[in-house]
Parts: sequence; C-alpha cells; structure tokens
Amino acid sequence: LPLHYRMHFAVLVFASVATMTTFGLDNGLMRTPPMGWLAWERYRCDIDCKNDPKNCISENLFIDMADRLFEDGWKELGYVYVNIDDCWSSMERDKDGRLQPDPNRFPGGIQRLARYMHDRGLKLGIYGDMGTHTCGGYPGTTLDKIEIDAQTFADWEVDMFKFDGCYSNAVEQELGYPLMSKALNATGRPIGYSCSWPAYQGGLPPKVNYTQLGQICNLWRNYGDIQDSWNSVLSIVDWFFENQDVLATAAGPGRWNDPDMLVIGDFGLSMEQSRSQMALWAIMAAPLFMSNDLRTISSGAQSILQNKMIISINQDPLGIQGRRILKEKVGIEVFWRPLSNNASALVFFSRRTDMPYRYKTSLSKLNYTTGSYKFTDVYTGKTDVLKDSTEFVVSVNPTGVVMWYVSAPGKLKYHPFIRGGKLHGPAYDAEENTFPQVFL
Amino acid sequence: LPLHYRMHFAVLVFASVATMTTFGLDNGLMRTPPMGWLAWERYRCDIDCKNDPKNCISENLFIDMADRLFEDGWKELGYVYVNIDDCWSSMERDKDGRLQPDPNRFPGGIQRLARYMHDRGLKLGIYGDMGTHTCGGYPGTTLDKIEIDAQTFADWEVDMFKFDGCYSNAVEQELGYPLMSKALNATGRPIGYSCSWPAYQGGLPPKVNYTQLGQICNLWRNYGDIQDSWNSVLSIVDWFFENQDVLATAAGPGRWNDPDMLVIGDFGLSMEQSRSQMALWAIMAAPLFMSNDLRTISSGAQSILQNKMIISINQDPLGIQGRRILKEKVGIEVFWRPLSNNASALVFFSRRTDMPYRYKTSLSKLNYTTGSYKFTDVYTGKTDVLKDSTEFVVSVNPTGVVMWYVSAPGKLKYHPFIRGGKLHGPAYDAEENTFPQVFL
Repeated sequence: LPLHYRMHFAVLVFASVATMTTFGLDNGLMRTPPMGWLAWERYRCDIDCKNDPKNCISENLFIDMADRLFEDGWKELGYVYVNIDDCWSSMERDKDGRLQPDPNRFPGGIQRLARYMHDRGLKLGIYGDMGTHTCGGYPGTTLDKIEIDAQTFADWEVDMFKFDGCYSNAVEQELGYPLMSKALNATGRPIGYSCSWPAYQGGLPPKVNYTQLGQICNLWRNYGDIQDSWNSVLSIVDWFFENQDVLATAAGPGRWNDPDMLVIGDFGLSMEQSRSQMALWAIMAAPLFMSNDLRTISSGAQSILQNKMIISINQDPLGIQGRRILKEKVGIEVFWRPLSNNASALVFFSRRTDMPYRYKTSLSKLNYTTGSYKFTDVYTGKTDVLKDSTEFVVSVNPTGVVMWYVSAPGKLKYHPFIRGGKLHGPAYDAEENTFPQVFL
Repeated sequence: LPLHYRMHFAVLVFASVATMTTFGLDNGLMRTPPMGWLAWERYRCDIDCKNDPKNCISENLFIDMADRLFEDGWKELGYVYVNIDDCWSSMERDKDGRLQPDPNRFPGGIQRLARYMHDRGLKLGIYGDMGTHTCGGYPGTTLDKIEIDAQTFADWEVDMFKFDGCYSNAVEQELGYPLMSKALNATGRPIGYSCSWPAYQGGLPPKVNYTQLGQICNLWRNYGDIQDSWNSVLSIVDWFFENQDVLATAAGPGRWNDPDMLVIGDFGLSMEQSRSQMALWAIMAAPLFMSNDLRTISSGAQSILQNKMIISINQDPLGIQGRRILKEKVGIEVFWRPLSNNASALVFFSRRTDMPYRYKTSLSKLNYTTGSYKFTDVYTGKTDVLKDSTEFVVSVNPTGVVMWYVSAPGKLKYHPFIRGGKLHGPAYDAEENTFPQVFL
C-alpha cells in the first residue's frame, strides 16, 4: 500500500522491569510466546477416517505429529505443544456430564494421548467452546459446564486449552471467559489458556478490554481465522499493524496477542511469503503454532520454521511486541522490535509484485541513535557492522522480507529498559509501552 | 467461486480440417504456441547496470538466458525464443531515422545478439510500440515509422516482434497493427508477430475483431499484464475462461490468445500455484514465455516448466483452445482440452484455501462417451484405466490442480475431428469451434 509516512520522534523515556511484568495470567506459563502445532488450519473438521485415515482428526494424527516434533528437531527448538482443535469429541457428554472424545477416533482416550506427549517432553492442548456448541457443532461449554470441563481437562493432564466462542452472546462470553480462567486455576494444574473472546468482539476497545484479558488469558485470538493464502496472511498483518498502538501494549510475558497459526509448509504460500510470515510473526511476539503436515513438509519450509535466530527473536524474554515503523510509497515497509541485551530486530518487507526492490536507507533514518551496530541477516547469515549514518541498500524480493538481528558491537553493562540506558533503536516509550506515532 | 453449474449436452457435430486452418497470419510461423523467455515481468525497465549489473536490461542478460536455455535442457523442450521487451533502445533514433539499441547496454548491437541466438538454435524477439512512445517512454513507432522499423528488425535478423500499444488511440491502432503485419511480411523475413492491440480495446467484440486478428497476428495479448502474484494469475484465469466462448474460437495454429507470461520460478507463487499456472496455460493453448531468472531457478520450478507431458499438451498440433466445463459450488473447477490422437486433457482445479478436497466424479459426468480410457497424471506419472461410468476421487490441493492426459486405450484409425468419428470427450462442435453451453 503505497502510502508514505514521515516519522516524528518521540521523547525517550526510561522503563522499569515492573511495568512489563505487572500483568499476565498468574499461572506462571508462557513467559515467552508458546510454540507448537495446532490441527485446525490444515486438517479442519476432517472426521472421514474411513476414506482419509492419515488426515482425519484422530489420535493417530496427533501421535504422528508428536513423533515428528520429537524426532525431527522441532522439540529442541521450542515447538512442544501438540494441540487438538474442534471435532475431537463425541456428540454426547458421558453419563456424568463430562466431555468425552469420539470413541472411534480417539480409542485410547485423551489422558493416554497426553501421557504420550509427556513421555516425549511434549505437551497436549485441547479445544472447547464457550457456548451451546462448538463452531463445528460438537458439544459446547455453557456457563454451567465450565467447572466440570476445566476439571476434566486437568484430570486428563492436558497442558493447554483453547476456548472458542461460537454460539454464545457477548454477555455469556463476558461471564464465561473469566470463569474458565478461575476454573482452570482452581484445578491446580497449570493449563495455558487461549481465549478467542476478543475475536468475537471485533478485537478493539472499548468492546475488548485488553487489561482484563492479560489478567485472565495467556493468549488470545484478536482477529479472524487464518486461511492457506497470502491474501489471508496480508489481511492479518494489515489489521495487527494498523492497530498496533492498541495491541502492542497488551502483550508481554504470559499474555500474548495471537494472529493465528503459521501456514508455512502448506499449499498457498511461496517461499518468500513463508519467510515473511515467519519474520512478521516474530516481530509481533506471536505464538508460533504450525498447522501443516510435518510428515511431508518440504525442506525449504522446514528450514524457515526451524530458523534459530528468528525463533530466538520471537522468544525474546522481554516479550515486547514490535511495530511497523515505516510505510514507504514504493511498497516497502519497515518493522522493528526491541530485544533484550540492547538488541533489536528489523524487518524490511516488500508489498510489490514486480521484482526485487533495492531499498536505500540508514539506521539513523530508522531512528537508531548514534553509534555502530552489528547486524546479522537471519536468513542468509550475512553479518556486518554499520554506523548509524551509513547509507545501505537492502534488496527485498516481491512479497518477501529481509530480516536483521541488530546489536551494538560492545556489550552494554546494563539493559537500557531496566537501568535507564539510552535505547538503541527507534524512540520507544517503555514506561507507557507506547511507540512514536508515525504520521502521514 | 462456489457456483454450481449443471451441464447440458450439445449435439455432436463433425469437423473438417479446413475450418481449423483457414485463418492465421500467412507467415507459416507458430503452428503451435510459441515458447521461450521474455524479459518484462521479471526485469521490467531496470536500466541500472551500474548498481544492478546482473539484472539490468542489457545484452548480457539475454546472453545469460540464452546460455541457460541452451545448456539446461530448455531448448530441446521447445523454449527457443529469447525476447527483449521495453527499454532496450536508445532515447533517440539514429541519423537515418532508425531505432537503435542503447549503446552502453547493447554495445554489440541487436544483430550480433540475434546471431548469438541463431548459433545456438535459439531465436531473438524484440519489442516496439504502436504510438509516439513505448510504455516506458522510449521512442515509439508512429504510423510513418512502421515500414522502416519492420525493415530494421528484419535487417537485424530478428525472429519475433511484440507490438505494444501505449500512446496511441483506437484509430491509429486500427491502422497501425495491420500495417505492421504487412510491413513485416514485406521484408521477406519470417517474423512472429505479437499484437497488444486487443488488450488496449478491452479484449472483447465488437471492439475487438478476432477474425481479423487471426489474419494479421500470430498471437495477441487480450488482457492486462501479469504480475508476480497468485491474485494476478487468478484474475487472468477468470477473465479468459469467463470469455472462453469468444476467445477459444479465435485460436488455432498460427494464431493464439496470449494470457501473458509464466511467472513460475519467481517470488509470488507457491509450488501448487505454479503447477496450476502451467496446467491452465496448457489448457488454454497459450504461448509459454517464462519471465524468470533461469540462472537461479529452483529445481522445483524448473521441473514444472520442463514437464514434457504438459508441454506436449500445450503444443498439441490441433491447436484447439480448451475450456472450463464445470464450476462446482465447493470450489472445484474442471477444464478440458481436446487433443490429437483422440486424446484430451483434464484439469481439476481447486479454489479452496483450506485443505485438499476429495472430488468425486466420473468421466461420464464430464461428458465422456461410453468406453474405457487410459489416463496419466501429468505431475505424478500415475497411470490407470477407467470406464466412463466408474466413480473416482481426485484429491485436489488448495490452489492446486490434478491434471490428466486422457486417451482411449485402443488407437482409433481416424481422428474424430477429421474423419467424423465419434468424439471421445465432452460434446464439442468443431465445425463451429464452439462448446456446449454450461448453464447455471
């Protein structure tokens, strides 16, 4: 979108650790964005195990994915959650009113599946819906069922719970999502809690209260479901960065905005687009849930998803969600995220659909303060040192990114956010967790 | 687009060879769709040889691509044209009023470049514009310059000429495009003639006269320029198949609709989408001009572009442009093209963006007549025999295709179009070169 924004500088303000750790669901979980695998985007509500046995929603699918996570190097990188989505349950609750898995597709039961994960250092996630039915028409969790369902999941030794919001109204949701948070905590089992609530309320204040969400949920879906297409990825990117001033302040250790699954390794994204989704999800401090077929994934897609430097950027312990800091008329956008150890991440993204664009800039134009910076291109491994004033050119491919990890060459004794050192990177007000406004 | 069309059958009518060979520019060229490489989509008007020497429009670029076509197996498959597009010329004509190449970027001149191609069994194409300027602002070919420019290209031993239409009006175009056809013929050198005329007149009758186009041009651009994106490919596919009744009758040996370049091997298409572009261009009997970097192309993209069976479908000597015969509500579309030797090509295409769709049908539902058919999946090589009445399932990936080459197992003595045998394939009126209407 060829809009040209000029940047105005904001005053640098110092930060304290306290402002970044005040909020967050008090279950001690997900101090960095959760990582793993989630069935929905790739497998949907495929329950046709007769004709499509390898892809239907069944314990075999989750066991297959667990095996791949365990054996193919995913687990060590942090991809530990194996998450069931909709269509796992029987159409009827059991005689005691508890949810039960479909007996044909999950003959071993959920607890055995959870133990299969735990035996391999993995975790199991499960899905429910605040409402009369799940989106796929399976039994929902009405207000009166919240306690029993939370207890059921805890009894099964489940590690994460996604609470969808089909077939309920705003009043029921306002009651149900906090109640479920309390009920999960009351079980005594640490269960990561993913809330779809804001996505059902438009994702923005005043309807959505992000302070409250940070207190009751570990992550939340703000926006619509991702699809296996670049248009879908772009619409999500657009929404999240257009609303970054509202959203970024909501995120932090234990509480994350969730722009939805990674569709890297599926059918709709080119390699460039796959690199872009990975880079922008890292800038957003987004949960990294792949939804793909790890049994047949291409080596190209796997190497993007297993890029250690990008994962470490995504998992930075400060947990500060990054921002778009520049939109150039020519279709280049620049994104920035402050990281621990006085470092930062930069993404140069091209919305062009013609040819690689040679974008000329300097770190000082990107609001970096005077000094020398070491950078590493996270996809090529190329490393160099740049003065803030040095003009450089990055060649950005159509729908692709160039992503840098930027650090000052000398280690600083104190982290600027913590000790009040001068921030290296675009002017950022960590006290308020706000960012310099970018004006038209 | 989830529209469901029911098919109604049309009467089978017999054909004669005559109806298929009456038209076509009488230069004997391009009896099958031309194949090769064209600079525009990938390299545009990049004239920055100082900073971008490997990618700027210069003789080196065309020599590099010729070397790749010659050495990497492309030439043997039919990719023989190496085509220059806009921005090759000097900003001034020479003292005799002739176009001349930019001396810094084409120091050896065009004739030497043509001979470089000819020495390797390749051909050289060049570009001009019916108007005061080319689209990129270089000297155009006004009506008074048509003869001298045609003669210049012939003197240079050029093999193909693309005549763009920026900076001219409808009246000038109506004069200029036929005049250029005559002028090229008058040189005595066979020069394939690509006309952008219909694209400037909306691509449809009554403004566009396809009978005339078939008499003066070997190929013509009907629609807007392709971009390196799946949206762009889809918009072209939509337009061409929505207007198939008008367009398909215009095509035949020596005269082709041109939906524009293949962007396979660039940045915007996934592998599935690349397979889809190749399959649908083959169904359309489209010219196959790649616009990509053959020096760095991935093996995946190369193998799609070098698929022998798809190329042979594209190059079928009957030269009948195929059609979309079915649009299913679920997002599956079926395309069909009749081929020589009583064969046909089928493409099952998915517009879905969720997961592979298991599409159930039979050959008789696709209007094949009673009998047994051998088919080969052109991408997997899988072969089988099917009765027309046998129900089968094809699993079509999101934005992907399954493409079959279908033949009757026994060879027929006579080709049905020529001798009046019963057509194996959807009812098709080759006399009228029309197709059964597909009704809502």
